[in-house]
Amino acid sequence: MLKILLSGCNGKMGKSIINVASGMDDLEIVCGYDITANETGNFPVYDNLENCKEDIDVIIDFSHPNALPPLLKFALDKKLPIVIATTGFSEQTVEDIKKAAESIPVFYSGNMSLGINLLIELVKKAENVLGSDFDIEIVEKHHNQKIDAPSGTALMIADAISEEIDTPVQYEYDRHSRRIKRPKNEIGIHSIRGGTIVGEHDVIFAGCDEIITVSHTALSKNIFAVGSLNAARFLFGKSAGIYNMGDLVSSK
Amino acid sequence: MLKILLSGCNGKMGKSIINVASGMDDLEIVCGYDITANETGNFPVYDNLENCKEDIDVIIDFSHPNALPPLLKFALDKKLPIVIATTGFSEQTVEDIKKAAESIPVFYSGNMSLGINLLIELVKKAENVLGSDFDIEIVEKHHNQKIDAPSGTALMIADAISEEIDTPVQYEYDRHSRRIKRPKNEIGIHSIRGGTIVGEHDVIFAGCDEIITVSHTALSKNIFAVGSLNAARFLFGKSAGIYNMGDLVSSK
Amino acid sequence: MLKILLSGCNGKMGKSIINVASGMDDLEIVCGYDITANETGNFPVYDNLENCKEDIDVIIDFSHPNALPPLLKFALDKKLPIVIATTGFSEQTVEDIKKAAESIPVFYSGNMSLGINLLIELVKKAENVLGSDFDIEIVEKHHNQKIDAPSGTALMIADAISEEIDTPVQYEYDRHSRRIKRPKNEIGIHSIRGGTIVGEHDVIFAGCDEIITVSHTALSKNIFAVGSLNAARFLFGKSAGIYNMGDLVSSK
Amino acid sequence: MLKILLSGCNGKMGKSIINVASGMDDLEIVCGYDITANETGNFPVYDNLENCKEDIDVIIDFSHPNALPPLLKFALDKKLPIVIATTGFSEQTVEDIKKAAESIPVFYSGNMSLGINLLIELVKKAENVLGSDFDIEIVEKHHNQKIDAPSGTALMIADAISEEIDTPVQYEYDRHSRRIKRPKNEIGIHSIRGGTIVGEHDVIFAGCDEIITVSHTALSKNIFAVGSLNAARFLFGKSAGIYNMGDLVSSK
Repeated sequence: MLKILLSGCNGKMGKSIINVASGMDDLEIVCGYDITANETGNFPVYDNLENCKEDIDVIIDFSHPNALPPLLKFALDKKLPIVIATTGFSEQTVEDIKKAAESIPVFYSGNMSLGINLLIELVKKAENVLGSDFDIEIVEKHHNQKIDAPSGTALMIADAISEEIDTPVQYEYDRHSRRIKRPKNEIGIHSIRGGTIVGEHDVIFAGCDEIITVSHTALSKNIFAVGSLNAARFLFGKSAGIYNMGDLVSSK
Repeated sequence: MLKILLSGCNGKMGKSIINVASGMDDLEIVCGYDITANETGNFPVYDNLENCKEDIDVIIDFSHPNALPPLLKFALDKKLPIVIATTGFSEQTVEDIKKAAESIPVFYSGNMSLGINLLIELVKKAENVLGSDFDIEIVEKHHNQKIDAPSGTALMIADAISEEIDTPVQYEYDRHSRRIKRPKNEIGIHSIRGGTIVGEHDVIFAGCDEIITVSHTALSKNIFAVGSLNAARFLFGKSAGIYNMGDLVSSK
Repeated sequence: MLKILLSGCNGKMGKSIINVASGMDDLEIVCGYDITANETGNFPVYDNLENCKEDIDVIIDFSHPNALPPLLKFALDKKLPIVIATTGFSEQTVEDIKKAAESIPVFYSGNMSLGINLLIELVKKAENVLGSDFDIEIVEKHHNQKIDAPSGTALMIADAISEEIDTPVQYEYDRHSRRIKRPKNEIGIHSIRGGTIVGEHDVIFAGCDEIITVSHTALSKNIFAVGSLNAARFLFGKSAGIYNMGDLVSSK
Repeated sequence: MLKILLSGCNGKMGKSIINVASGMDDLEIVCGYDITANETGNFPVYDNLENCKEDIDVIIDFSHPNALPPLLKFALDKKLPIVIATTGFSEQTVEDIKKAAESIPVFYSGNMSLGINLLIELVKKAENVLGSDFDIEIVEKHHNQKIDAPSGTALMIADAISEEIDTPVQYEYDRHSRRIKRPKNEIGIHSIRGGTIVGEHDVIFAGCDEIITVSHTALSKNIFAVGSLNAARFLFGKSAGIYNMGDLVSSK
């Protein structure tokens, strides 16, 4: 049983992690750390880490940028691996994170979704196998309140594929104004918006009488909880250094 | 058994109809009419309709515009219903078709696909039931040699839905250049191009935590054969007049 | 603006209705009725309907079977239409509901999802148009905690299609033990189970080189809120009688 | 330009290869070998390999088991790599193939589809990354004339995934007769049959609020032509030995 200290356990994402972790039988949240020390789950919650006496294997942080410095100090003192899923740190804190990684294993990733990072690994492989005989199209779907298009994730996917292609790649967002056959060196990116769709990304490889599609559907932000718990499993037993979700996926 | 005279039986679409009809047990091609009277199936083929002695219930024409006048005359003489699936007629011939329809039942449709016409009927119903609480998006997929976008069928679908909506509707082809929430009065239309995809049309109604999708996939031009055989079934026993695929779908 | 009295406003589904209604601009919740009169929204909540002085167009009940009798009496006294989305009534209460419907319009439906009822209407139409040339398969997907298979909704869909078919229809759940071509008179029903999938139903009509699919995806139980608000819109202005979701869908 | 000798060039699959190759600009069919020496393309066709004087890089064989022995001898004499896409060899010929592979590179694969072999590689990776937190379901769709279920390909996929899992895996074909929560150690396999569907395989990984799907759709048997041409590209320049489609996919 992997014993986890959860920082930010009383926040929205903290509760999501508690919920997701309860369905996994190889790990356990043994204590929490939060600005409000209310105990809502079946583990002690501390607002001061000095009081924490539990035996811990990995720390997961899903709290607030301000909460990291004491937590990072605690991790360094105890030589504990730490998964940092919080975002929005100051430059100084980012420096501190990098410095800490010289002594302890630190997981720090721009996108904590396991599924999206896996999808990126899969489509890079697909591009390398299928090559220029297949045309690539990305379709992403999100709710009608999202103001940007395409999604940052769709662009991350397109960029990752482009890096695998030797020739320059053009992103095509709108075909209705042109009358030409599809050029080989383009990736079509299509943004569907409607209702309350949480997030879908389809990557289509269309060749001669054969289509391969890799799809990811998110039903809620719980997927970041799944990602951070997998990061904890991955990080335990690693040597000091910075790791991210791409490392986790490549390692399997 | 519905007895069919097939005009254009030695052409590409004629062969497709023979093939599709062989799998249906309530109709039979009893004779063919073609500029080349070669008999390749198990029925007689005539290059001159005067020689045709078979008992016929319905005529299907899938030949060439030039072949219609003698066929139409034959239909009028024998008082036979005729399904006209050929396209590209002169204005004069279109007039002749309309005139013929005063005496005999004539099926003449801009789009002979049963499935696409059904999809249009279904999405009109969906729009009327779901109303403005649901956002509508159309995704169409075709091969990489197609030069126009969106497909004519996608526009036909969008137009049919728009007619059911009281307020003006905007078609949106490209969201990547804007930063706004999705307006209610738009239909997004997305054109995927790749490989040898024959033709797919998805109509998505996305509401609050609920998505209804109506999809049509074509695997070959055989779908026009299926449509014309259904038209023959529909036309048999009808009174004189012009009918189209929309009439067939509404009648069921 | 349609003015709604919401019974059960402090329950889980009540909150869902308040949330969904806030996004609709043609209706408004003007007051609530609940065993606990806490006011959490921006409308008064009563635990005794005698105190209710608001002007009301339609009542929606999403509470507990025990709460219906006083609410039904209130509706009869005030001659107000009532949408009953609660389930699990005693036989006596069902009798009372039917009796009430002699004086006021009552909406009472076994399945309050607008989308599923629409899907049923669409696939019945599709069956009638496509007929026996197309094979029908139903695929439903639900979470891994669901113990029954197939879903009640999948069976409801299959039954509705079967009623449109003249010949007897067999439901096929398992093909792996047989070695035969697919018989015409069967509907395949497939139950996918995995993760936390809320609910998906695909109805596939596969014909000669042509496939029509009608799909419904639920992302949460909010879909019953959407259904009951549509029922309220539908019921307003109707004459006395019992109505259900099928009536609503057919009416459009 | 990769120069190809195509054995079986006048057969159905031979014509498919000619067609697919014409759309690729890095390879060229320079001559053909067939029992009937008719020249239908723009290259010479031999019924006796002794007359073949063209400069050749790779041989592709898509003919008849009987045609292999002289072709294999020719390959050995000229030290040419050979892609064998024909199936149904006698044990003796299989021995000869293995023996030849001691001197020349030989590509010989049970399944020549590039896409299916890629899908297998991708889902093995997905299983390793996602692990037991995700439930796996396979849905395959084929035409209504197919007598076996599930498809051999679906079983090949399930077996490949099972090999990556430490604990024993059960294949589940029918859930309708049971009332239990989904066990973790099963793979659901579902066989949809309808119309003229050529072949679809979806592998679904369903986890906590997250679904990853890898899909393959075949539109015709041309996919084996695509596979054999990719095999030719792969084989050119390799040292002696036996290679298969799994090797090709892993190498990228």
